[in-house]
Amino acid sequence: MDFEVTILGSNAAIPTLSRGTTSQFVQCKQRHILIDCGEGTQLQLRKFQIKYQRINIILISHLHGDHVFGLPGLISTMQLMGRTQGVTIYGPTGIKKLLKTQLEAGGGYFQFTIDFIELEPNSSGLIFEDKCIEIINFPLKHRIPTHGYRIKEKPALRKLVKDKFDLTGVSASYIKKLTQGENIIDNRGIEVKSDEVTLPPAKTRAYAFCSDTAYTESILPYIQGVDLLYHESTFLDNEADRASETFHSTAKQAATIALKAGAKKLVLGHFSSRYKEINQFKLEAKEIFQNVEIPSDGDVFVIS
Amino acid sequence: MDFEVTILGSNAAIPTLSRGTTSQFVQCKQRHILIDCGEGTQLQLRKFQIKYQRINIILISHLHGDHVFGLPGLISTMQLMGRTQGVTIYGPTGIKKLLKTQLEAGGGYFQFTIDFIELEPNSSGLIFEDKCIEIINFPLKHRIPTHGYRIKEKPALRKLVKDKFDLTGVSASYIKKLTQGENIIDNRGIEVKSDEVTLPPAKTRAYAFCSDTAYTESILPYIQGVDLLYHESTFLDNEADRASETFHSTAKQAATIALKAGAKKLVLGHFSSRYKEINQFKLEAKEIFQNVEIPSDGDVFVIS
Repeated sequence: MDFEVTILGSNAAIPTLSRGTTSQFVQCKQRHILIDCGEGTQLQLRKFQIKYQRINIILISHLHGDHVFGLPGLISTMQLMGRTQGVTIYGPTGIKKLLKTQLEAGGGYFQFTIDFIELEPNSSGLIFEDKCIEIINFPLKHRIPTHGYRIKEKPALRKLVKDKFDLTGVSASYIKKLTQGENIIDNRGIEVKSDEVTLPPAKTRAYAFCSDTAYTESILPYIQGVDLLYHESTFLDNEADRASETFHSTAKQAATIALKAGAKKLVLGHFSSRYKEINQFKLEAKEIFQNVEIPSDGDVFVIS
Repeated sequence: MDFEVTILGSNAAIPTLSRGTTSQFVQCKQRHILIDCGEGTQLQLRKFQIKYQRINIILISHLHGDHVFGLPGLISTMQLMGRTQGVTIYGPTGIKKLLKTQLEAGGGYFQFTIDFIELEPNSSGLIFEDKCIEIINFPLKHRIPTHGYRIKEKPALRKLVKDKFDLTGVSASYIKKLTQGENIIDNRGIEVKSDEVTLPPAKTRAYAFCSDTAYTESILPYIQGVDLLYHESTFLDNEADRASETFHSTAKQAATIALKAGAKKLVLGHFSSRYKEINQFKLEAKEIFQNVEIPSDGDVFVIS
């Protein structure tokens, strides 16, 4: 099943002609999720040919403009293009008032429902689950309340080993329970243990999004072992003081978090416009963590 | 002196990769004015290499998102790029609350002042003047309160005819009054009439902006004889009913207004995305008014 992250914007603070402000599109098992929505996100979605009407979950990290100013435009476009399916927006307390003020100023009537789930500052926990995925939020360390998010597959069913199952002689109606990990006794009293006739499911994959944040190890429990970690790196090491003052991170700090979390791959982003040589972020991060990527807008990271 | 209008966005409702939503930049005698500010306007300003920090007057027609969703991002970028000069925003009642809600959600501190001049529905009159230009607003006919704007040069000084002035024998200290159109009597009792030694100033130029609006002749008194008229044309003639229902205009209606106003040139815009052949707008308008232009984003109209 697909699990892909598309970088829609990778610049900090100000959009430029080559890099938009923060936004990412995550497709996970037919779930279509937008994370953050800086100004111009609807155009990035169009540019990278993403079917934005399929998005039904929007996760907003915090209310700084470069993460949220594209939201009213995207919602308006969804409406103008005839959307009827609802959308749920998760974000910090205040997101509902902010968006409704903008949409209502234009006298907006919407033919689809917008549900808001406002997350308390410093809260963490499960915010969404269905049969395929679960999403948690966790607190980042920024100037205003800011949430990180982790999107994780739910465990699939165990894999039936057909030859072994056939030898048990029990009815095929027990396969479901066995692949769910349950041991069974059939109506003739034959006992079959799940792990005798099935193999463990494929490992569940996970993606974690951490922007904007100062260096903080308090996030490690939430992102431990993720397959792909996005961690902001607004600055290079020579501006570590500035990073600390503004509650942002350096490339080295992001790499240190990736290392300590045991992440498999790290994607950097939220690059300050002051840097013209973005590859320097990769070089600095690689001193600490090898598997690191510096994305261009439009890059897709497949979690396999 | 320069008087130029740059089209920053010419699409209706939804931005596309080739056309932004409504925004225009007007440079008139060292005044730098932005009219409307759809999402992505800051990127259009960047793309067309306009020095956006010089903008000190922003005129907003109405609070539909395609005319205003780019405003918080532009203001934020002005701040982040170190602006200290103030800006004055003119717009419908509600513009202040709308913008402040967005800027304050991010905990925004601004090192420059933002003054708001809120215009009452259906109001008209002089809203700005300095020694060089004057700006009036006037009501358009739309679903929510919407303002048109006219930017007009003030009359320049009359031109001194040096040979004739020298023959009068009066002191050069009287030149200022004479070029201002005043007759003088000098300290020796010599009388000089202004029109004997000066020629009339060049005709004052004017630009009028009318978007969004249904066809309405009520705007004619405000735009009479303008050198350049921007009038929205969301639809073609075959959708005149739809134009009427949604309080928009067709290309033919815009051309009729230009004709009746005695405008010298008409620029159309706010084209619905449903039309792929934009040139059709020109053909329909030309049946009624010859000097009509269909802009691409970035086109500059010089008023000479």
